[in-house]
Amino acid sequence: MGAQRDPIEYADASAEVRAVYDDIMATRRVDWVNNFWKVLAHDPPTLRRLWGNLREVMAPGALDPLTKELLYLAVSVTNGCRYCIASHGASARNKGMTEQQLSELMAVIGLANETNRLATGYDVPVDARFTAS
Amino acid sequence: MGAQRDPIEYADASAEVRAVYDDIMATRRVDWVNNFWKVLAHDPPTLRRLWGNLREVMAPGALDPLTKELLYLAVSVTNGCRYCIASHGASARNKGMTEQQLSELMAVIGLANETNRLATGYDVPVDARFTAS
Amino acid sequence: MGAQRDPIEYADASAEVRAVYDDIMATRRVDWVNNFWKVLAHDPPTLRRLWGNLREVMAPGALDPLTKELLYLAVSVTNGCRYCIASHGASARNKGMTEQQLSELMAVIGLANETNRLATGYDVPVDARFTAS
Amino acid sequence: MGAQRDPIEYADASAEVRAVYDDIMATRRVDWVNNFWKVLAHDPPTLRRLWGNLREVMAPGALDPLTKELLYLAVSVTNGCRYCIASHGASARNKGMTEQQLSELMAVIGLANETNRLATGYDVPVDARFTAS
Amino acid sequence: MGAQRDPIEYADASAEVRAVYDDIMATRRVDWVNNFWKVLAHDPPTLRRLWGNLREVMAPGALDPLTKELLYLAVSVTNGCRYCIASHGASARNKGMTEQQLSELMAVIGLANETNRLATGYDVPVDARFTAS
Amino acid sequence: MGAQRDPIEYADASAEVRAVYDDIMATRRVDWVNNFWKVLAHDPPTLRRLWGNLREVMAPGALDPLTKELLYLAVSVTNGCRYCIASHGASARNKGMTEQQLSELMAVIGLANETNRLATGYDVPVDARFTAS
Repeated sequence: MGAQRDPIEYADASAEVRAVYDDIMATRRVDWVNNFWKVLAHDPPTLRRLWGNLREVMAPGALDPLTKELLYLAVSVTNGCRYCIASHGASARNKGMTEQQLSELMAVIGLANETNRLATGYDVPVDARFTAS
Repeated sequence: MGAQRDPIEYADASAEVRAVYDDIMATRRVDWVNNFWKVLAHDPPTLRRLWGNLREVMAPGALDPLTKELLYLAVSVTNGCRYCIASHGASARNKGMTEQQLSELMAVIGLANETNRLATGYDVPVDARFTAS
Repeated sequence: MGAQRDPIEYADASAEVRAVYDDIMATRRVDWVNNFWKVLAHDPPTLRRLWGNLREVMAPGALDPLTKELLYLAVSVTNGCRYCIASHGASARNKGMTEQQLSELMAVIGLANETNRLATGYDVPVDARFTAS
Repeated sequence: MGAQRDPIEYADASAEVRAVYDDIMATRRVDWVNNFWKVLAHDPPTLRRLWGNLREVMAPGALDPLTKELLYLAVSVTNGCRYCIASHGASARNKGMTEQQLSELMAVIGLANETNRLATGYDVPVDARFTAS
Repeated sequence: MGAQRDPIEYADASAEVRAVYDDIMATRRVDWVNNFWKVLAHDPPTLRRLWGNLREVMAPGALDPLTKELLYLAVSVTNGCRYCIASHGASARNKGMTEQQLSELMAVIGLANETNRLATGYDVPVDARFTAS
Repeated sequence: MGAQRDPIEYADASAEVRAVYDDIMATRRVDWVNNFWKVLAHDPPTLRRLWGNLREVMAPGALDPLTKELLYLAVSVTNGCRYCIASHGASARNKGMTEQQLSELMAVIGLANETNRLATGYDVPVDARFTAS
C-alpha cells in the first residue's frame, strides 16, 4: 500500500515493458534488470521516457561515462538517495572507479556541502569577476 | 545586522589573515582573493582550517582537478548555492571546462535529481547484487 | 537512546494525550492512531499543537483533501522522508488516489526536481512578465 | 562566465531551436518563450529532450493541469528554486489558481516540511498497516 | 504575479490582522512588524496560526531564547533560506549573539553538512550502542 | 560493493589509523570508536583531516559543547542523515541533553523548516532593517 510497488519480473511483463528491459540489458551488456526499472514498469510511458533520457544523458560524450557516474553519485549522496548511491556506486565500480577515486569523490562531496553552507550563511556577495562575460 | 559580514581586503587584514591570502594566491597562481575567503577572514581559525581542507581535497590525485571542480558544481547546483555555482563555475572554466562539458554536466545533474526522487518516492528495494561483497 | 522515542500506546497514555488520540480517530473515522502521533505523545504540547495545525491545514477548502495529500506527498518525496511517504501515501489511497494518479504524481515530482536544478545551475534570469503585477 | 548563459532570442536561434520554440508557443497558445528554454537553447539536444518530457508529463491525464502545476510549485518551493516558483506560479495563475488556493497550497507545503523533519528526527517506525499489501 | 504577494501595512490591514500585528509587537517589544508577517497577512488564518506556533515554540523553556535562534539559523542556512537567515540573524543579534558565537555557529553548520554526506555516502551502519535503550 | 565500506576494527588498523582512534578515545574519554571513523579509516588522510576538524570545531568556545551538539542535530535532522541523528543524539545525551530539551529542539527544527518554505515560496523581500549595518 502507500506509494510502494512490487518489481515486475521479465516473465510477468507486457511486450511493451519487455522491449525496454531488452534494451536496458543490450545497452549495458548484462543479463538482468535492476529494481528501479522493474518498479517503474507499472507505468510504461514513464519507464520508456526515463530509460530514453538515461541512455541519452549517460552516453559517452564530452564527459566520459565514469565521470558521469561520479557526478550521479555526487548528486545522489547530497540528496541522500540510498538506492541511487547503491546502484550508481555499483555502476561506477563496473566502469573502473578505484578505491582511491571513491575516497576522493566522497571528500569533494563532503567539502562542497560544507562550503556551500558557509557561502549561503554569510550571504557572500558574488565577485564581479565571476559574472563578467 | 544579521549574519552578513563585509569582505576584509588585503590592506586591512592582519598578518595571520594575509598569510592565508598569500597562500591562496600562490597556490592558484592568481593575484586576487575571492570574497568567500575575505568574509571568512573575520574568523581566522576557520579561514585557515577551511583553506587547508580545500587545498588538500582539491589537489590533483586519483581524480584530476577539472573532474573535482565538476563534482563541486554538481553538489552546489543540487544545494542551490548561487555563490558556489559562480565561483566553481569560473574555476571549472579556468581548468578547461568546455561548453559541451558544461551542457553534459547540467544534464547529468538534472537527471540524477529526477531519478533520485522516483527511487525514493517508490521506496525501491536495493537489489541484492548491489550490496553483495 | 539518541533521539528515538518509543510510541506511547493508548492504554499507557495520559488523559491529555488520550484526548488528542480520540480527536485524531474521530476526525479520521478510524479506530487506531499511527506512530507519528504516538511518538510525539512524549511531548504533549507539541502533540496538541501539531495535530491542531494538521487538522486545520488538511481540512477541505479551496483545495480538496486528495489534492492536499498529493501535495504532502510531493514535499515528502522531495525531502526523502520515508515515514511520511508511507503515511501520506496510505492517506492518499484512502482518499481515492488511483494507480494512474500515483504514476502521474511521481512523474511530475521527478521532472520538477530535474528542471529546478537546471534553472538554478544556469542561474536563469526571471522573466519580467513573471514579476509584473 | 561561470555557469551562466545568455538567453538566445528567436531571431538568433538555429532552425532546430526555432522548431522547439514554435512548439512551445503552439502548445501553450502564447506568443513568447520564457528564459528557461532560451538558456537551454545553447544545448539543443537537452532543449528538445526536456521540452518533450515536460509536454508529456504536464499534459492532462488522471491529474488535471492545474493540480500538476500546484505539485510543481510544491517541489520548487521545497527546493528553493526562485525561477521555478516564479514561472510555475505564473502558469498556475494562468490555469486558474485562486488566491485562496495559493494560500492553502503554501500552508500544506509549510506543514509538510515541518512534519517531515519530526518524523525523520525521531526516526518514527513505519506502521505495519502502511506497508501491508 | 506568480506566487508573490505585497506586504500589507498596518494602516491597510483588517482588524483581524492588526490584532496579530499588535501581539507580535507587544511580544517582541518593538514598534514594527517584519515583511514575513505582512505577506502572510493576505491569509489571516495562516497568519494567526503560524504566529501562535512561533510564539509558543520560541518562548523560553528548557532551551533559552538565544539557543533557539541559533537552531533556527542552523536550519535556515542548511535550507538556503535567505530571508530567514537575515531575519533570524537579526533576532539572534538582538538576543545577544556575539561575533565569536556567530563564527562558531557557522563552523558547526558547515562541518555537520560535510559529515552528514560522508555518513550517508558510505552508508555507515548505525552502531548498536546508539540504539540500545 | 557500490560505495559501502566495512568498518576497520582497531585490531586490523594500521599504526596511522590507530593513532587517530587513540586520539578519538582520549579526547572523548571513552574506550570505543564509532563506525563513522572506522569506515573513514579506509582513507587515512580523510580520517585524520576530518577528525582534526571535528575536534577543533566541537571544542568548548563561545558556544558550549551541548549547544554545539544541538546545532549538529538540527542540521542532521534537516538533511535526513539517519546515522548522524543517532550518533549526535547519543552525544547530546552524554553531554546532558534532557527530554524536555530534546522536545524543544525538535519543535524548533520543525517550525524553522516550515517558515523557511513560506518565506521562500512567497519570495518575501528582506526588510531594510535586517541588512542595515
